[in-house]
Amino acid sequence: MNADILKERSGASFDVEKLTNILDDGTEKTKRRREIESLVFSDEDFKEQDPNFLSRSERYDQAVRKSAQMILKIRDYGISDPEEIYYYKSTVKGNQHEVLGLHFVMFLPTLINLCDSEQSKKWLPLAQSFQAVGTYAQTEMGHGTHLRGLETTATYDPSTQEFVLNSPTVTSIKWWPGGLGKTSNHAIVLAQLYTLGKCHGLHAFVVPIRDMNTHEPLPGILVGDIGPKFGFHEVDNGYLRLDNVRIPRDNMLMKYAKVEPNGTYVKPPSAKLTYGTMVFIRSMIVGESARALSKACTIAIRYSAVRHQSEIRPGEPEPQILDYQTQQYKLFPLLAEAYAFLFVGQYMGQTYNRINGDINQGDFSELPELHALSAGLKAFTTWAANSGIEVCRMSCGGHGYSRSSALPDIYVNFTPTCTYEGENTVMMLQTARYLVKSYRQAKEGRQLSGMVSYLNEAETQRVQAQPVSARPTVVDVNDLSSLVEIYKLRAATLIEMAVKSIQQELQHRKSQEDAWNNSSIDLVRASDAHCHYVVVKLFTNKLREVSDTSIHSVLSTLALLYALHGITKNSGDFLQAELLSVPQMLQISLRIKELLAQLRPNAVALVDAFDINDRKLNSCLGRYDGNVYEHMFEWARRSPLNATEVHESFHKYLKPLRAKL
Amino acid sequence: MNADILKERSGASFDVEKLTNILDDGTEKTKRRREIESLVFSDEDFKEQDPNFLSRSERYDQAVRKSAQMILKIRDYGISDPEEIYYYKSTVKGNQHEVLGLHFVMFLPTLINLCDSEQSKKWLPLAQSFQAVGTYAQTEMGHGTHLRGLETTATYDPSTQEFVLNSPTVTSIKWWPGGLGKTSNHAIVLAQLYTLGKCHGLHAFVVPIRDMNTHEPLPGILVGDIGPKFGFHEVDNGYLRLDNVRIPRDNMLMKYAKVEPNGTYVKPPSAKLTYGTMVFIRSMIVGESARALSKACTIAIRYSAVRHQSEIRPGEPEPQILDYQTQQYKLFPLLAEAYAFLFVGQYMGQTYNRINGDINQGDFSELPELHALSAGLKAFTTWAANSGIEVCRMSCGGHGYSRSSALPDIYVNFTPTCTYEGENTVMMLQTARYLVKSYRQAKEGRQLSGMVSYLNEAETQRVQAQPVSARPTVVDVNDLSSLVEIYKLRAATLIEMAVKSIQQELQHRKSQEDAWNNSSIDLVRASDAHCHYVVVKLFTNKLREVSDTSIHSVLSTLALLYALHGITKNSGDFLQAELLSVPQMLQISLRIKELLAQLRPNAVALVDAFDINDRKLNSCLGRYDGNVYEHMFEWARRSPLNATEVHESFHKYLKPLRAKL
Repeated sequence: MNADILKERSGASFDVEKLTNILDDGTEKTKRRREIESLVFSDEDFKEQDPNFLSRSERYDQAVRKSAQMILKIRDYGISDPEEIYYYKSTVKGNQHEVLGLHFVMFLPTLINLCDSEQSKKWLPLAQSFQAVGTYAQTEMGHGTHLRGLETTATYDPSTQEFVLNSPTVTSIKWWPGGLGKTSNHAIVLAQLYTLGKCHGLHAFVVPIRDMNTHEPLPGILVGDIGPKFGFHEVDNGYLRLDNVRIPRDNMLMKYAKVEPNGTYVKPPSAKLTYGTMVFIRSMIVGESARALSKACTIAIRYSAVRHQSEIRPGEPEPQILDYQTQQYKLFPLLAEAYAFLFVGQYMGQTYNRINGDINQGDFSELPELHALSAGLKAFTTWAANSGIEVCRMSCGGHGYSRSSALPDIYVNFTPTCTYEGENTVMMLQTARYLVKSYRQAKEGRQLSGMVSYLNEAETQRVQAQPVSARPTVVDVNDLSSLVEIYKLRAATLIEMAVKSIQQELQHRKSQEDAWNNSSIDLVRASDAHCHYVVVKLFTNKLREVSDTSIHSVLSTLALLYALHGITKNSGDFLQAELLSVPQMLQISLRIKELLAQLRPNAVALVDAFDINDRKLNSCLGRYDGNVYEHMFEWARRSPLNATEVHESFHKYLKPLRAKL
Repeated sequence: MNADILKERSGASFDVEKLTNILDDGTEKTKRRREIESLVFSDEDFKEQDPNFLSRSERYDQAVRKSAQMILKIRDYGISDPEEIYYYKSTVKGNQHEVLGLHFVMFLPTLINLCDSEQSKKWLPLAQSFQAVGTYAQTEMGHGTHLRGLETTATYDPSTQEFVLNSPTVTSIKWWPGGLGKTSNHAIVLAQLYTLGKCHGLHAFVVPIRDMNTHEPLPGILVGDIGPKFGFHEVDNGYLRLDNVRIPRDNMLMKYAKVEPNGTYVKPPSAKLTYGTMVFIRSMIVGESARALSKACTIAIRYSAVRHQSEIRPGEPEPQILDYQTQQYKLFPLLAEAYAFLFVGQYMGQTYNRINGDINQGDFSELPELHALSAGLKAFTTWAANSGIEVCRMSCGGHGYSRSSALPDIYVNFTPTCTYEGENTVMMLQTARYLVKSYRQAKEGRQLSGMVSYLNEAETQRVQAQPVSARPTVVDVNDLSSLVEIYKLRAATLIEMAVKSIQQELQHRKSQEDAWNNSSIDLVRASDAHCHYVVVKLFTNKLREVSDTSIHSVLSTLALLYALHGITKNSGDFLQAELLSVPQMLQISLRIKELLAQLRPNAVALVDAFDINDRKLNSCLGRYDGNVYEHMFEWARRSPLNATEVHESFHKYLKPLRAKL
């Protein structure tokens, strides 16, 4: 064990294990998680080459092997609880992705949700036995976010009782679905349904794309890999061009909408039913943001405790870089953010489960708020984690660029969350739509519930005509509930500004739609402020559940840093709304420096509490034992370029060059 | 040609070619640049596979081949002007790097600068004929920024008149030098010089590391590739461990410092002489920031003109995504920034040349300011371009993640500039040191020159005790010189705040060094504000040189957007310093929206003016003709995973899996 990191650990003011239990949501869960992780670590079948040393084809090969093994092992071990399956899979995956991911996350669930009972009997056994390996083909080359724009057609032919599927244009080629390129033999294809000469919009069809025995593409199918990407190297995101591909009528998933043998279209009873999966996945992504950022913080903070560089005081040994105020200022707010997002992720999970229970009982009342909240928080947390990971990477100096640090892998495999499952700006605007609607309802005197209920209060306060200039003095910058209050008022102010912008545009004779577009900068800003408020509030709420004094103390410091740092990064908003005064802003800057110094002795312990096993972290810089340099050297020596002492290019190009000069 | 992009071009209000000439610094230069570029494009020898489809060893091989060809061709064509060599090489390189880069940028220049006349006769012919292929080995695994901390030793042995070089620890292993791993047979090694029992600090030694004939590593040398990185895949950044490696006495570069045969050390006359290269490279990086950001903007803006998505007005066709205000708000400030940085890059080049002329005449007076400016602007522009490239990438939706967009390559190959040639935070603090010193000199009544001279003015203004609250009303937010003025005052205010923080720390009995460290957040913020002021000022100054009315008009709009957007992103600073009022801040937000709308018709023309040839841009999304989707599809079909219809992993893992279930 590296002496520095040992010393860091002995200086912590709290019991790391207890904090881990809080993050895991209970002692039992920590125990069970570790048991499952150790199943993977002790398993010779999961020994692997660092994927960074492999060609893309080798990476894909290794990923398919691991996926196949996972399926067998999970069955053999009898792991069936979804959370435990998640532990197992995420341990196997490490910083990479699962090549069969979409089979589990989209293909199977869609079959379960959209098959009628006859179809279930046919497709579920095929999918569960991996005779049918599937993906979900929605996005097209020219169409992502806007589903109505999708161009793929499925035209019903009553004479043969078949659908004929076509990709009429280049832009209509299905593009991006994971596992589509090489792995899947079936795809659920979203296509515009035409029957009896009429278009009925988007519907889902099960399309066999490869022969189940030979795996060769079927007639009319052009399928392949879309080529290398920023990350996801082991996943065969694919393309699919359909050329008069005929499928039987009952390959349309008919639980809700139907096409009868004669071509008659039967409408689905409600559109709300498909709403849930999307909300679930977005809620899950909030947790992914937290976990990705936790990994990056673990690496950067441990390395900063081990790395010595330059000098603060002349003549003294080089200090740990964690002692530089600028380094603390880069990393500790991100550490606080990682904690904040972990707690928000817990909240979203619990809320989803609660509301899902309500939905199953027919109560949809809270779904709109959850939908708006999951959209905004998905965007807010992924953007923040995305830039935070890069700050962590760059805080590691040169070594952060090495693949041995794992930081490049963490970044490239996380950053797509900003785009998939709803592009972030679009997500922010969806939340804004809900906020504007809620604002107008509050104006009309309607009582709001949930996270937007402050819009009622703001209305009340405005009615009382409280002198704005008197407000700032009451804010105590050391009191979290005061800070929650001003985050709330900031959000209320920005929502009001966005609404006013829309009104002004309308006064200039703009249409509703143009007014909306011309106010969209303000709308995104308002959503961002609302989400920021929610995060500060949930972090503060979480503290109430923590009984251990020393943990309560260190988490409170983190929460305060999170809140105050957010204020300085958006100081203009708070000053413009007269929520804080200039002297208070200076006071906050000073207070932040104190908080950094206060957190310094607990920084390593705080990342230790994330309890990310070395095998899962796979980072030479972030190792628990701090023995960074020995392992970087050992890792580098395994680089494929070192397989021979002399690379053939010397004989091919460099030696001949001399002769020519 | 895509119809949308054609329409965009016909709507431009200015002559694109004239603006290109301004960016190239003259019509003749544009012509010559294009001539040189076409030499490369028409050259069959530079036809290559997309490196993204190759294994790392193949990429390295291709890069060595191209480097060797470049050397021959540049000689054959008789290209000798440094700027023209730069054109040629950057055209060959595209978004990748030159594997022999350090031979040209560091090995040769160091030999030229540090060899005495005898040594020059030996080493220069060897290096120029590529008998000796070299690199510059300074950084070690445990040491980057802080040169005094380097551990490699060179101990003089008078009995054999040799230096004995050693890597005494794991952390002392040379790490990162480009071309060190496989390509170079020599390295200039920076090592602590010991002679007659005394250490004389860091000196440079030419160390043969591989046999010049066989290319096998020499005895005592452990050399290799440090493994895959975030980018720079084709470059063999290397490690070097020295174990009692003996080199002749005259392999120490002795132009200034010397060791005599008996071991007597002779001090160099001045330390200033090595200062220049560093300043030169940092100044160059400012231009690299501009070029990288220009590429990213070209791709994102052209694609946004081609891509149609969603709806603004119901029932109408899907709009170009460039019509969304949020998209404009992401991209146009970056476009303005790219222009700003191009002009700052031009200024830095001119200033470097001027001051270098002075230095050659023995006048070092302006070097400290240039040193401070190049450090700060290197950090300021690389950070901004770094995050800007990612904003561009994410603004392209899913396709931005594809390697076919080129955006991932541009990012990973640019981002190291934030760390190399001086880690950015360290750079900002170097600039801060100069600013604090200048501030104190101004306080003492000394007249400052150059970019910091405003610290005198600020001093004067303070003496006049101008009522602060009266100030805001005089700022005209549409007048660039007014805005330059408030950026200046913001910088002055933040420098003063940083100095006050140091003073307060000293009053709390902290040492100078601790006071500095405990104020470093404020110091970085002050440097950042100073650099921001310099950029706004230089952009504004540049406008004076532009005589063409329509170009002047569009560049003024960009400059105004750059300045106002910078204010809103740092609105707290301007409000805190009472440089702007709350109503003005609202006015600025509205004005920004107007500017976005104003720039919209010129956006494509403004990126066209960067004149980045398709071959150099190598992006399916950023193509000049806008035929995005056809080329993405064609590119994807060439993906190596598509070489066979059925990947072997199907037979190895997926088919057997079914049998086991």
